[in-house]
Amino acid sequence: MLSDKFTISHEQLHSAIVEIFTSIGMPYDHAKLVADVLVEAELRGIPSHGVVRIKDYLGLWSQNRLNINAKPKIEYETLSTALVDGDNGLGMISGNFAMQSAISKANDAGTGWVAVNNSNHFGIAGYYALMAIDHDMIGIAMTNANPTVAPTFSKQAMLGTNPIAFAVPTKNEQVFLADFATAPIARGKIELLEKQGKSVPKGMLQTCDGIPVTDPTAIKHGGTILPLGGDYEHAGHKGYCLTAIVDILTAVISGANFGPFVPPQVSYIKEKNNCPGKGLGHFFGAIRLDAFRPAEKVKEYMDLWIQTMRSALPIDTEQPVLIPNDPEIEMIDFHKTNGITLLPEILNELKKTLNELSIPIPDNLT
Amino acid sequence: MLSDKFTISHEQLHSAIVEIFTSIGMPYDHAKLVADVLVEAELRGIPSHGVVRIKDYLGLWSQNRLNINAKPKIEYETLSTALVDGDNGLGMISGNFAMQSAISKANDAGTGWVAVNNSNHFGIAGYYALMAIDHDMIGIAMTNANPTVAPTFSKQAMLGTNPIAFAVPTKNEQVFLADFATAPIARGKIELLEKQGKSVPKGMLQTCDGIPVTDPTAIKHGGTILPLGGDYEHAGHKGYCLTAIVDILTAVISGANFGPFVPPQVSYIKEKNNCPGKGLGHFFGAIRLDAFRPAEKVKEYMDLWIQTMRSALPIDTEQPVLIPNDPEIEMIDFHKTNGITLLPEILNELKKTLNELSIPIPDNLT
Repeated sequence: MLSDKFTISHEQLHSAIVEIFTSIGMPYDHAKLVADVLVEAELRGIPSHGVVRIKDYLGLWSQNRLNINAKPKIEYETLSTALVDGDNGLGMISGNFAMQSAISKANDAGTGWVAVNNSNHFGIAGYYALMAIDHDMIGIAMTNANPTVAPTFSKQAMLGTNPIAFAVPTKNEQVFLADFATAPIARGKIELLEKQGKSVPKGMLQTCDGIPVTDPTAIKHGGTILPLGGDYEHAGHKGYCLTAIVDILTAVISGANFGPFVPPQVSYIKEKNNCPGKGLGHFFGAIRLDAFRPAEKVKEYMDLWIQTMRSALPIDTEQPVLIPNDPEIEMIDFHKTNGITLLPEILNELKKTLNELSIPIPDNLT
Repeated sequence: MLSDKFTISHEQLHSAIVEIFTSIGMPYDHAKLVADVLVEAELRGIPSHGVVRIKDYLGLWSQNRLNINAKPKIEYETLSTALVDGDNGLGMISGNFAMQSAISKANDAGTGWVAVNNSNHFGIAGYYALMAIDHDMIGIAMTNANPTVAPTFSKQAMLGTNPIAFAVPTKNEQVFLADFATAPIARGKIELLEKQGKSVPKGMLQTCDGIPVTDPTAIKHGGTILPLGGDYEHAGHKGYCLTAIVDILTAVISGANFGPFVPPQVSYIKEKNNCPGKGLGHFFGAIRLDAFRPAEKVKEYMDLWIQTMRSALPIDTEQPVLIPNDPEIEMIDFHKTNGITLLPEILNELKKTLNELSIPIPDNLT
């Protein structure tokens, strides 16, 4: 099945990640969660949130900036809410804990909302939103992120690309999942365009002086990402509002760091000092469908919503109108059948990590 | 104070609107709510949601498409949620009822979430979000709207401009309020640009064939608004996700009409037949700050968030970085001092309505 020596099955990848994190002392259940989320990102075709992150997490750990024995705990709660301290662990640990808590609150109170402080990178937001689906609940997950985005009229990086994931159960259609950064482009994607010698589309990037550019190298010289929409004329202030809302829900409510104070999630960037909050912040929600109407009715209606949008007239008949999650579902099927092909540099990094930790490298990769 | 015969004080305008709606038989308390919301829009400098709507509401009523004696009621509830039937009244009536219910639920359960079906136009979303502020709660309000926006890759109007309002209490800074349509431009604004002989900025509009245009007349010939961001290359699929989420929360949960089935809010567009849901939908939320941390701490932290964003380096020192709600607060002050100046055609329409209903026209307008 596996086409070449750069391709690994998702099961192999999962085992390798579990071994990496248990070998440095992370509890097995936690290592499994980290592997679940990173492999899910690779399966969905979001490699920026997959294997490439392992080195970052290990780097933060080796600098004592990440607690691999984190024990997230509820600091305060009401019938429908909780505040969770992530104990400076990876966001997968606090995220899983917090989302389960949101689901449990929703069971009792109709909805559950959990804010997390003192956390770190949690991978793809969609993973947590999807946890609600089997409970016939809408799932919501958000995180803030280190600053790369300038508010409207500014040339300074003050906000992260702060993603939102929103998952809705269905009856017969595939699950609805919108999982998107609230900025128009990720920093990693800008770097990829640079490597490929390509330009960044207009309205996404500006120089350190706030001049609009399409040259991806601008970001290395103090440039910033514009909010979704672009500049003020192109309604970028709406994107600014959206990214701000995620920052407020994840950090202002929880007491995590906001905006420019969000801790970097890579070890080559130094820790920030004198920050006003605790770590990085997340926000999770679970909404029981039958807290409003019978769940079966809502799921049938969601099917109709999906069928209706899918039937919208396409501009080009070769490119049908998509429902959020369509491309990712296709990628999951492909990757489960054909394995996950890693970029040579990412694969070499993974092999190096495995070697350093004396973990055997799967035969087909050597 | 009032500068000319096109200018009316907000108190005069409020009285006139109350008289208009009570004279056709709307209960006084409801007419007052309608006036509160429409005047608040004018004060905030959002005339597209102010006086201009009176004619639309009266038109719908005269065609028996709007119930001016609506009695919104809770159809189902849990500790933190409720489903409200708006009884086919104006959205101000069900919106006020639902937001109060959300606040009351939040008092008991930490948060409150109320979905509304069988409703109509509710004016500015920000009005309802702000109702939560005095209770030390975050307020959230959304509505769907009749379709003008095409999903990514489509040339068909399938979604409304579906606004979101999000209000956050502060300690010493002015209240944070982000109130924004999730599409880049409103249909009314496109018409205004046409009247002024101006172009629509790039990435906002396409022809009935899905060709990008800046010519505002395209919208009259079957053209559609693009999602926030623009086309797929410019990350418009993220705007599509956002608008879709509002449609799902307001209509799929509540059983209101979604997307292309949302009833028109002007009388010159015919009613739709065979729609799958009940009326138009809203969604409201209230989040008690102290359901997570002491409210004073959250409010102080929100002040710091605002001060931090305001201090971001501006591109142009003549245009400081703004916090959402800054321009509107300035407009409120201006309009309270100088009165609200109506466009001649809007004022004439208002006078005509007052005449028809035998309501005296304020002296200074004659």
